[in-house]
Amino acid sequence: MSAPHDLAIRGGTIVTASDRFRADIGIRDGRITDIAAEITGAREEIDATGLMVLPGGIDAHVHLAQPTSDGTVMADDFESGTRSAAAGGNTTVLPFAMQVKGSSLRDCVSAYHAKAEGQCYTDVSFHLVISDPTPQVLGQELPALVRDGYTSFKVFMTYDDLVLNDAELLEVFEVARRERALVMVHAEGHDAIKHMTRRLEEQGKTAPYYHAEAHHQIAEREATHRAISHAQLTDVPVMIVHVSGRDPMEQIQWARKRGMKVHAETCPQYIALTRDDLKGLNMDFEGAKYVCSPPPRDADSQAAIWEGLRDGTFEVFSSDHCPFFFENSEGTGKDNPRARTSFKWVPNGIPGVETRLPILFSEGVSKGRISLERFVALTSTNPAKLYGLYPQKGALVIGADADITLWDPTRTDTIRQENLHHGSDYTPYEGMEITGWPVRTILRGQTIVVDGQVVASKGQGAYQTRGTSSALA
Amino acid sequence: MSAPHDLAIRGGTIVTASDRFRADIGIRDGRITDIAAEITGAREEIDATGLMVLPGGIDAHVHLAQPTSDGTVMADDFESGTRSAAAGGNTTVLPFAMQVKGSSLRDCVSAYHAKAEGQCYTDVSFHLVISDPTPQVLGQELPALVRDGYTSFKVFMTYDDLVLNDAELLEVFEVARRERALVMVHAEGHDAIKHMTRRLEEQGKTAPYYHAEAHHQIAEREATHRAISHAQLTDVPVMIVHVSGRDPMEQIQWARKRGMKVHAETCPQYIALTRDDLKGLNMDFEGAKYVCSPPPRDADSQAAIWEGLRDGTFEVFSSDHCPFFFENSEGTGKDNPRARTSFKWVPNGIPGVETRLPILFSEGVSKGRISLERFVALTSTNPAKLYGLYPQKGALVIGADADITLWDPTRTDTIRQENLHHGSDYTPYEGMEITGWPVRTILRGQTIVVDGQVVASKGQGAYQTRGTSSALA
Amino acid sequence: MSAPHDLAIRGGTIVTASDRFRADIGIRDGRITDIAAEITGAREEIDATGLMVLPGGIDAHVHLAQPTSDGTVMADDFESGTRSAAAGGNTTVLPFAMQVKGSSLRDCVSAYHAKAEGQCYTDVSFHLVISDPTPQVLGQELPALVRDGYTSFKVFMTYDDLVLNDAELLEVFEVARRERALVMVHAEGHDAIKHMTRRLEEQGKTAPYYHAEAHHQIAEREATHRAISHAQLTDVPVMIVHVSGRDPMEQIQWARKRGMKVHAETCPQYIALTRDDLKGLNMDFEGAKYVCSPPPRDADSQAAIWEGLRDGTFEVFSSDHCPFFFENSEGTGKDNPRARTSFKWVPNGIPGVETRLPILFSEGVSKGRISLERFVALTSTNPAKLYGLYPQKGALVIGADADITLWDPTRTDTIRQENLHHGSDYTPYEGMEITGWPVRTILRGQTIVVDGQVVASKGQGAYQTRGTSSALA
Amino acid sequence: MSAPHDLAIRGGTIVTASDRFRADIGIRDGRITDIAAEITGAREEIDATGLMVLPGGIDAHVHLAQPTSDGTVMADDFESGTRSAAAGGNTTVLPFAMQVKGSSLRDCVSAYHAKAEGQCYTDVSFHLVISDPTPQVLGQELPALVRDGYTSFKVFMTYDDLVLNDAELLEVFEVARRERALVMVHAEGHDAIKHMTRRLEEQGKTAPYYHAEAHHQIAEREATHRAISHAQLTDVPVMIVHVSGRDPMEQIQWARKRGMKVHAETCPQYIALTRDDLKGLNMDFEGAKYVCSPPPRDADSQAAIWEGLRDGTFEVFSSDHCPFFFENSEGTGKDNPRARTSFKWVPNGIPGVETRLPILFSEGVSKGRISLERFVALTSTNPAKLYGLYPQKGALVIGADADITLWDPTRTDTIRQENLHHGSDYTPYEGMEITGWPVRTILRGQTIVVDGQVVASKGQGAYQTRGTSSALA
Repeated sequence: MSAPHDLAIRGGTIVTASDRFRADIGIRDGRITDIAAEITGAREEIDATGLMVLPGGIDAHVHLAQPTSDGTVMADDFESGTRSAAAGGNTTVLPFAMQVKGSSLRDCVSAYHAKAEGQCYTDVSFHLVISDPTPQVLGQELPALVRDGYTSFKVFMTYDDLVLNDAELLEVFEVARRERALVMVHAEGHDAIKHMTRRLEEQGKTAPYYHAEAHHQIAEREATHRAISHAQLTDVPVMIVHVSGRDPMEQIQWARKRGMKVHAETCPQYIALTRDDLKGLNMDFEGAKYVCSPPPRDADSQAAIWEGLRDGTFEVFSSDHCPFFFENSEGTGKDNPRARTSFKWVPNGIPGVETRLPILFSEGVSKGRISLERFVALTSTNPAKLYGLYPQKGALVIGADADITLWDPTRTDTIRQENLHHGSDYTPYEGMEITGWPVRTILRGQTIVVDGQVVASKGQGAYQTRGTSSALA
Repeated sequence: MSAPHDLAIRGGTIVTASDRFRADIGIRDGRITDIAAEITGAREEIDATGLMVLPGGIDAHVHLAQPTSDGTVMADDFESGTRSAAAGGNTTVLPFAMQVKGSSLRDCVSAYHAKAEGQCYTDVSFHLVISDPTPQVLGQELPALVRDGYTSFKVFMTYDDLVLNDAELLEVFEVARRERALVMVHAEGHDAIKHMTRRLEEQGKTAPYYHAEAHHQIAEREATHRAISHAQLTDVPVMIVHVSGRDPMEQIQWARKRGMKVHAETCPQYIALTRDDLKGLNMDFEGAKYVCSPPPRDADSQAAIWEGLRDGTFEVFSSDHCPFFFENSEGTGKDNPRARTSFKWVPNGIPGVETRLPILFSEGVSKGRISLERFVALTSTNPAKLYGLYPQKGALVIGADADITLWDPTRTDTIRQENLHHGSDYTPYEGMEITGWPVRTILRGQTIVVDGQVVASKGQGAYQTRGTSSALA
Repeated sequence: MSAPHDLAIRGGTIVTASDRFRADIGIRDGRITDIAAEITGAREEIDATGLMVLPGGIDAHVHLAQPTSDGTVMADDFESGTRSAAAGGNTTVLPFAMQVKGSSLRDCVSAYHAKAEGQCYTDVSFHLVISDPTPQVLGQELPALVRDGYTSFKVFMTYDDLVLNDAELLEVFEVARRERALVMVHAEGHDAIKHMTRRLEEQGKTAPYYHAEAHHQIAEREATHRAISHAQLTDVPVMIVHVSGRDPMEQIQWARKRGMKVHAETCPQYIALTRDDLKGLNMDFEGAKYVCSPPPRDADSQAAIWEGLRDGTFEVFSSDHCPFFFENSEGTGKDNPRARTSFKWVPNGIPGVETRLPILFSEGVSKGRISLERFVALTSTNPAKLYGLYPQKGALVIGADADITLWDPTRTDTIRQENLHHGSDYTPYEGMEITGWPVRTILRGQTIVVDGQVVASKGQGAYQTRGTSSALA
Repeated sequence: MSAPHDLAIRGGTIVTASDRFRADIGIRDGRITDIAAEITGAREEIDATGLMVLPGGIDAHVHLAQPTSDGTVMADDFESGTRSAAAGGNTTVLPFAMQVKGSSLRDCVSAYHAKAEGQCYTDVSFHLVISDPTPQVLGQELPALVRDGYTSFKVFMTYDDLVLNDAELLEVFEVARRERALVMVHAEGHDAIKHMTRRLEEQGKTAPYYHAEAHHQIAEREATHRAISHAQLTDVPVMIVHVSGRDPMEQIQWARKRGMKVHAETCPQYIALTRDDLKGLNMDFEGAKYVCSPPPRDADSQAAIWEGLRDGTFEVFSSDHCPFFFENSEGTGKDNPRARTSFKWVPNGIPGVETRLPILFSEGVSKGRISLERFVALTSTNPAKLYGLYPQKGALVIGADADITLWDPTRTDTIRQENLHHGSDYTPYEGMEITGWPVRTILRGQTIVVDGQVVASKGQGAYQTRGTSSALA
């Protein structure tokens, strides 16, 4: 009676953030219209027998095509970055539209739209970064942008060209409360890091490894407590991004237990790497491949992060993909003379948008640390809710976009740079054994990746305007 | 092409433990076969416009037709108890098959089957109660019963005729680990309660109110710690049932934080009543209407219980329905001469199977304390998973039993004994204002209650054999 | 055989930080030479029958003769301040030698010596205040001053003219570690306070009471956490002064439990006043009499402070005496037009050097909250140890200065401004009933106060050079 | 003018629980009458130059001459036990007068008096042990004994012949509150230990080492929580003795933080031994030398115990001296055939009264973990206060018994069985290097040990009647 489906995914096991069941999915016009025991007669059928049918991954923390203050070229633009994301099982990524100090925030947003336009393989939506909270920005541009669907913005408590002081943070938090936007905080104490850096340099400790000492967990814990306190004082929810270890995590747990509205994100580097990776071979410059902020910590912190992933402390698991070149760096990677003089000149960031889902699945689900349902919640449903994309994204429900990842839980593979699609020339996870791998990525009903082959056309991904965060509902 | 649905529920908003979306549900042979944007042509249609479509309530803690050691008659048998449950939006209840000391556990189970057979309006399944852990029971009967699908059993740390000592508890826990069953624990310290009782009686404090002092929160906290320790020592998950207040709850949180496998349940009486209710009018015998164990606590504990419902400390919200007569008690309620001499003779238990869902919805969802998704998790999905009924029960997914409750979130009502269907002659929640009420209960595709009218035939409910608890997966 | 004692104190009960016993004390040349069952033949005898014989009070946190940036005159100079201290049972006070921005620290110290010279009734020693941590100050002046016996210094995390930023705090902490000095921290978050102030002013909330809201406990807690983190990062002990409530106190307990070297002080205003005192009469300007920073909190925080005094969280109980005029203020108190426009112009500080010991004794010892031995530890022995005065000061031991206070635990009195000796024209404790009062103060063997009459000559008090803090031993 | 002193101790450094200073001590009639800069003319002088002058050690937890249910002979009677104690720097020990089930408590006390009479080298006082809390014992004997100065008694939560159930514990606690006596609790869960023992035996794990697994820390933690809860319910202070590790310690800290009146003791075996010592050589029977209850734990627990010694969680450090023969055991030590079949037959207890002070001094004071003042508090002043001996014992104050230990903080020595004075034929601390050793023990003004030679006559020690515990003041 009703028209045939455009596509039916048949025979798989559907997994949501709470349920798991055998069913077919029927899709029309890019949306899920039917979930049923049996769907026949579709124009196209995909056999998902033996596979998990998951809502497409949403990577809520991705850096693409960002200019850096020192001229370092980021290894991914929107094209390569979203291609890599799609290959890793993602259907939506949220990069940052970063305000350059002295510039209009709206202009910066426009510039990022220009960079993304027609380039994307997955859907995208921008978080804003506020680096220059002038009265004009806070009083006019930001409120207008929130109303236009840029409903989340990030502030930094460190980095010379981005850091906001406490007075500025408090002002931004007030705007967030008033405009009902979600503030994301990079919580590391700027002065503490600079102090430690100077101390280490004075001792001749300049190898990349010392980045991990300069960006001490104490500095992250302190800034986390400070951000939480500012949020409590201004009565606004806050999202602490890329939490690296036990100390900051415990601050978040402490705050929640007292009723504060604190949300938290962690990343693959905090479960799959440790500070020892920054040692490279015998403290050499290979360690620069693992430099990110906050840095990976130790085994105890890894255990803590797993606890937090399991018990709900972390609601979001993102990549913090921030890719640079190492080998062919034209002066920015291993051949960067300045970075050889001190870890502080090594660009902060590692690639990871393509490996995020396999790493969490393999280390988490396959090893029995978290359930499959929790995997879905952390990587898709929760970010969709917290960043105002739900229920259009992040859920296998009627009416939602047919953003679907087919997952083979039994497929084993090894992470190899040569198989990845990102722009960077290395992966910090080289050689890691993975059990469970995405085998098909479907964006609004269209297969964009199959068996590691990107079959989408550039520009198939669209910009997504977002609603209000569930944290503010 | 495929046969028409037996039933379609149309136009409602489906709510699961993680998702919420507008869709129709199609049912065949008592099971959900389709969830779709539009389902037409069903033999029967129910218009759910404006209603929430929830998985039917599962009340995991219900006492029906239990003999008591002092001859008090329980106010509900399987007929009236399940009728009341159905009227309250439930499709499955889990009563206890209680071993009488000196008896074979298997024989006790058979006796309960005999009582339930042909009497039920909802589906039912039995937890076992182990009161006499003889080698025969632990070595042979219990393992066989677990294999037959009685995959959970309860032990008591108090009550003269039920209490197990620590040696016995440890033995039972060992069996639970070996047989992969879930142990439920009534955690109150027997000797402490008896000690307090004697002390209060010596002081002439015999009114029902003093039940709340004798069953002190310290005694519950201590027993909770003890049960958790025994479970840790024997490496078996444990479910602490009917947690009443902040003190025992904090023990559970402490244990989980340290990686112990502790699950917890709470009940309506701990959010809707306080110990002051036991005072009746000026410490009179009206207070007996509120006597249950553990007793309701105070406002601080109510706040704690809400925290625990919100943050996941509690996974299950049950009624602990345990109904007695008060008015027409033939010597067991207000005319019970022995109970007039001391609170210790007042039967322990209150009715609640019919009011459980409305109270949690109204106080929790309508007042903004918990989300609708969490409501579904606490009242249906989680108990289904933890007690081995999932995914047949507890979920609106393809292939599941079509156990569905239609809920009108805007309907306001007042709890009145005259409108309830249980056997008891009073409700402790008399006069409570409710926002949000179940308007239709559907069991395996058949409407069993509509607008407060039970339309099912007796015996429509069936016994459910259960699988292994998710706690042991 | 040996020469007779200059003085014997006979018949009293000696109390130390750990012991209590009946004995006589014999004094020669201003020092304790004998403690014995009976000392006869002294040139002078004081009958201490029925009295407690305590080491003289050491008030480790006192502001005297400080210039303020807005020209407000402090109500006490060294003469009146030490006279008041002596009358309150103290034999040593530690005021601050405050660096003025742009000035040499050494010059500031000299200026304070000039103010104190020949003016004091009690012994005095200066903490330094670092407000301008230039390389000259940190690299040369401060190390030299520490070697000269100025072994403690204070830093401020708020106040426009004193606040150090995090980079400066870390530098100062490094110097403290290197030079083995004890850093004292005024921990309140500057930006948070200014933010709150602006918000309150915008709402027209300008009465003195709103000082207590602007100086929010969250801002104190945050700064406490930050100071502790900086100390942990630089591996130096830190003393958090004038802790006002439960929130900052719990940070200190948390830090200690993790092995951090954190010390803490609290003050009378946090056990004897609450924020409600700032309301004056119906939110009028009388509230200005109670304005200090941090402000008094609430009953829950008072209870927390008592816990902390009892369990050792607080090692020092000081007055934070910082007196201003209210009635006769020549434009600075009740007739200060600017302060009438906003609480932010009300001078921060209240008098208390004379009432510190009676308040703690009466509320603490007499009411059974702390032991007499703990009273001695908090008010004399611990400050002597932590600030490098021990064992010359703070102990009734052989060889110590004969700084002794005779205390009548049964004497009841009411605090009245008319009976106090300070320069201020009011006391915030007016009308408070006290049980237990000092009846004689003896400085190095000389009675300086008896029954409320100051009998010392001006200049009898001497400057005390100090050794290294026990916190750094 | 006054009579010369019987004895002067000259030139030493006096250390109390809070102070340290150079002074001479003058003694008359066995009591301290003078503490002075210089005391000349005494009949006898002891040169303490370079030595610490400490209050004599009080070992508050010692088992002497106790009969055991299985006929094992204890290795020390009052003579050898107190001789060993004196040699180890102690002047008072508190053994137990243990009620035998079925016997009158008063008769048991008399029997111990008979054993002690004329045999002791140090002063002694008895704690009672209640093993049979009949109405006669609780209602009449115990109250009378408390009034007679037996102001503390111990209860056991394990051991077949001693264990009290919860009902009995609660009864005993009530008597303690009513009679103002201090209850000491051996907190280990009896049923849990028996359960674990059986499980281990079934697996053939019968070597002495498995004692440490059977007496699991979980069982100690659970019993600690239970004892604390019973004490809270009956509103009486409680002393948890011989706390072995982090888990029970945290229960104590948790309880105190919530205002419960819990005191705690630990012992040398928990800082100087670990469970690995029970392994002997390759899990052989040598491990039996280290069997005590609770057993030593691991490095983490040792660290926790040190924290607790430092932060005041532990107020008392005792030996729990409970000596048995190993070599020449006539069937009870290494030649005990039954003990070879299972660890459960190995007598529970190790010698330690002579090594307690050197071990704590060496590992604590010499290694910088605790201050000298805290050493004095833990080993002498606090036990004196908590067990009603203060200020006669436990303090170097005027009027106190001249119980004094001279300590050479620089003397290094190695613990060797051949140098010890106890009755046992081994020490579990054989070969341990010690820095700091007692060089003279003085009991009521009489030297009883000098340089390791016992010079006292048997019977010089006297029985001490005790007053009310400071815990009940």
